[in-house]
Amino acid sequence: MTGRARLVVIGGDAGGMSAAAQARRIRDADSLDVVVLEQGQDTSFSACGIPYWIGGLVGARSDLVARTPAEHEQRGITVHTGTRAEAIDLEAHRVTAADGRTFDYDTLLIATGGRPTRPPIPGLDAPGVYGVHRLDDGQAIRAALDDLPTDRTPKAVVMGGGYIGLEMAEVLQARGLDVSVVLADPLPMGLLDADMGERVCAGMRAMGLTVHTDQAVREVLTGPDGRACGVRTDEGTHDADIVVLGLGMGPEARLAEAAGLGIGVTGGIDVDATMRSRTHPDVFAAGDCVQTHHRITGEPVHVALGTHANKQGRVAGSVIAGRPARFAGVLGTAITKVGPLEIGRTGLCTTQAEAAGFDFRSDVVEATTRAGYYPGAEEIAVKLVTEAASGRLLGGQVVGGLGAGKRIDVIATAVWAGLTADELAGSDLSYAPPFSPTYDAVAVAARVVSRAERG
Amino acid sequence: MTGRARLVVIGGDAGGMSAAAQARRIRDADSLDVVVLEQGQDTSFSACGIPYWIGGLVGARSDLVARTPAEHEQRGITVHTGTRAEAIDLEAHRVTAADGRTFDYDTLLIATGGRPTRPPIPGLDAPGVYGVHRLDDGQAIRAALDDLPTDRTPKAVVMGGGYIGLEMAEVLQARGLDVSVVLADPLPMGLLDADMGERVCAGMRAMGLTVHTDQAVREVLTGPDGRACGVRTDEGTHDADIVVLGLGMGPEARLAEAAGLGIGVTGGIDVDATMRSRTHPDVFAAGDCVQTHHRITGEPVHVALGTHANKQGRVAGSVIAGRPARFAGVLGTAITKVGPLEIGRTGLCTTQAEAAGFDFRSDVVEATTRAGYYPGAEEIAVKLVTEAASGRLLGGQVVGGLGAGKRIDVIATAVWAGLTADELAGSDLSYAPPFSPTYDAVAVAARVVSRAERG
Repeated sequence: MTGRARLVVIGGDAGGMSAAAQARRIRDADSLDVVVLEQGQDTSFSACGIPYWIGGLVGARSDLVARTPAEHEQRGITVHTGTRAEAIDLEAHRVTAADGRTFDYDTLLIATGGRPTRPPIPGLDAPGVYGVHRLDDGQAIRAALDDLPTDRTPKAVVMGGGYIGLEMAEVLQARGLDVSVVLADPLPMGLLDADMGERVCAGMRAMGLTVHTDQAVREVLTGPDGRACGVRTDEGTHDADIVVLGLGMGPEARLAEAAGLGIGVTGGIDVDATMRSRTHPDVFAAGDCVQTHHRITGEPVHVALGTHANKQGRVAGSVIAGRPARFAGVLGTAITKVGPLEIGRTGLCTTQAEAAGFDFRSDVVEATTRAGYYPGAEEIAVKLVTEAASGRLLGGQVVGGLGAGKRIDVIATAVWAGLTADELAGSDLSYAPPFSPTYDAVAVAARVVSRAERG
Repeated sequence: MTGRARLVVIGGDAGGMSAAAQARRIRDADSLDVVVLEQGQDTSFSACGIPYWIGGLVGARSDLVARTPAEHEQRGITVHTGTRAEAIDLEAHRVTAADGRTFDYDTLLIATGGRPTRPPIPGLDAPGVYGVHRLDDGQAIRAALDDLPTDRTPKAVVMGGGYIGLEMAEVLQARGLDVSVVLADPLPMGLLDADMGERVCAGMRAMGLTVHTDQAVREVLTGPDGRACGVRTDEGTHDADIVVLGLGMGPEARLAEAAGLGIGVTGGIDVDATMRSRTHPDVFAAGDCVQTHHRITGEPVHVALGTHANKQGRVAGSVIAGRPARFAGVLGTAITKVGPLEIGRTGLCTTQAEAAGFDFRSDVVEATTRAGYYPGAEEIAVKLVTEAASGRLLGGQVVGGLGAGKRIDVIATAVWAGLTADELAGSDLSYAPPFSPTYDAVAVAARVVSRAERG
């Protein structure tokens, strides 16, 4: 791209806006037009914050908007809100919006985000069934909560036990609802090993949530008014005043696919490490709509997370503006909480390690988050997955009380760097009684692995 | 060491007892006698917990004892408490105790610990002046606090602004005292750079502590009863009902030195990475009494910390018992808190990087511990020191609210692994609103460095 050129961005959230902002940072308006098409009214909003807004922990919808369209405009980015891209003509280099307007581009960045999983069951479209994807979803759930019956404890069914499911269960309980979490899987948090998932399940039950496992929802039941009033599984029915979907997120790549862009095995847009389409070099993509690669296995994966979307957007924006950049892949690091329980994971769990063909071992230790004698010391379980022959760390999981969750970042950094358990055990992690026992739980876990390997 | 042999250990705290326990784990009583000489009555106690016991956060003295002499005895370790080693005859392989008993050894492990710094000023030995080193010190301070005047707010002077100084200031304030911290240095926390130390100083003042900087104490003043009643500096006097010493800790190597063992430039016992004396191969040493090496510079350093003592003891115990092991060095990672402020550091600060001859840069970012909109988001400042040409991380510092401190472990792991700022910026750290903004503060700092390096 030389001379004055135009970058068109489809999607004004994390991936799209970070690409737009990065391209603008490197090239000024004389050399690059940056035009963003956003179907909604918001840009750069935190979908991850929606549960906490519903729970009343976040005061205002506007708190979840990191940067408004007007703020982007001030930085020299043209933003068309309420503008839904309906078709891409890759040969003509043109995007057509739902209202018929067309936008010509030299370079296109697709950031259409994720698509919440919706199983094909009757009743899922009934009023009273809510996703947790866009700010409008949050607004609708907040309104529904204000309309709940007050003469009895209202009930919620949360379908799914991933991050959104757990977070929604927590906040709906905090809002006074009797919450049932209904899972098709045997345990919540499918990206944890079963022994760690069991700890999460026990923690959820201890905080008063009802957890139904191994029960796929077959139908959302509706009342005489047509609104959802419960769900039916093979085991029975569960009443609900509201039903919330937390079944995970796939890539929203329909627009790209219809245009003829290459789509990967995960269903995400097939891009290289510069976020450039492998089939159409004038097209880039970033965020929840793309397929990326796993740092350990090298295999294609789809991971929907704002952090990756931001980084990928920056990479795409840099490359589009002429500065080299690469996205370094993902470990699938994730963190969440449900009530007092903090949960983190990174890299490969045992089922992933097995599928990837690693000869591995796994070890779990139980420790405390602070010196045992210091007030507020909470239980923490740390699991490490390591390559059997080399001792190289492949992944880790933590479940525990306050302060446990962020321990996952130490493991993520060690996995990222390719450390062995022995090297991590020898490393210099911090110690003082308010922060950890003499050996931090992560170091204890690494030491246990390292000792076991030595035989 | 073949056949039945005897290991004598001088010092029954972290370094000594972990060596004893590890040697016992590997070799049974038929092949190895393990005899520990401890001058006090306690073994394996947490000196780091003493401030919190004084502060009433830890209920009982016994809570600070990880393992009693009796528990060690049950594991096949002979412990002689109240037995002060007074001389070592390296030729005769014999230790003589203060009471005249002698102990012959095949292998000797010296774990005499640290010696609190005591400047040569008048009045320092007066009653009412307290160290914070052994459990008896804690007991004495607790007793003194119970005897304080109740008709006015009692006053404490804490001499020194290192970890112990800060922790003691916090707990004495919590016990209702008006606390002045008197420093010879311009700022507290000398192992932080000045800009980060200023944050600590401001935080201390914000919590109501009086901080006198650049004021070396010239004399401890005593009242008519001979008890300490204040301190005098060049700027004036500061009244005190009790005076607490927190001036840091050197190696306690006098016994080793008198015996003729090699002592390093730091004053610690000169050992190799197997914790074996470089001058006397039948002698090992571990813990606060030894000189160790810095992981980044390779230079000899002395760092007094229970974590290192434990690890070094394990290494020594393994090697003594015939199993290879090496101590991998230290980064000088440390963490502490004062009131609501958490403080961590690892690797080289700028003055250390300069002294070590690195061409380096340093960058500071300010962020929050949680998503800005999530309740309890606290300020955090992260500073990174990196090698200019390579971008390799040399060290880091964090100061901030709840959840800030343990972030230092991510930096410590990255420094340990030899990552560049760019690699850390690309790594997969966890994100969810209750735990961090979309980019964790550490990742933001790494990105700022990485961007600046790129020019």
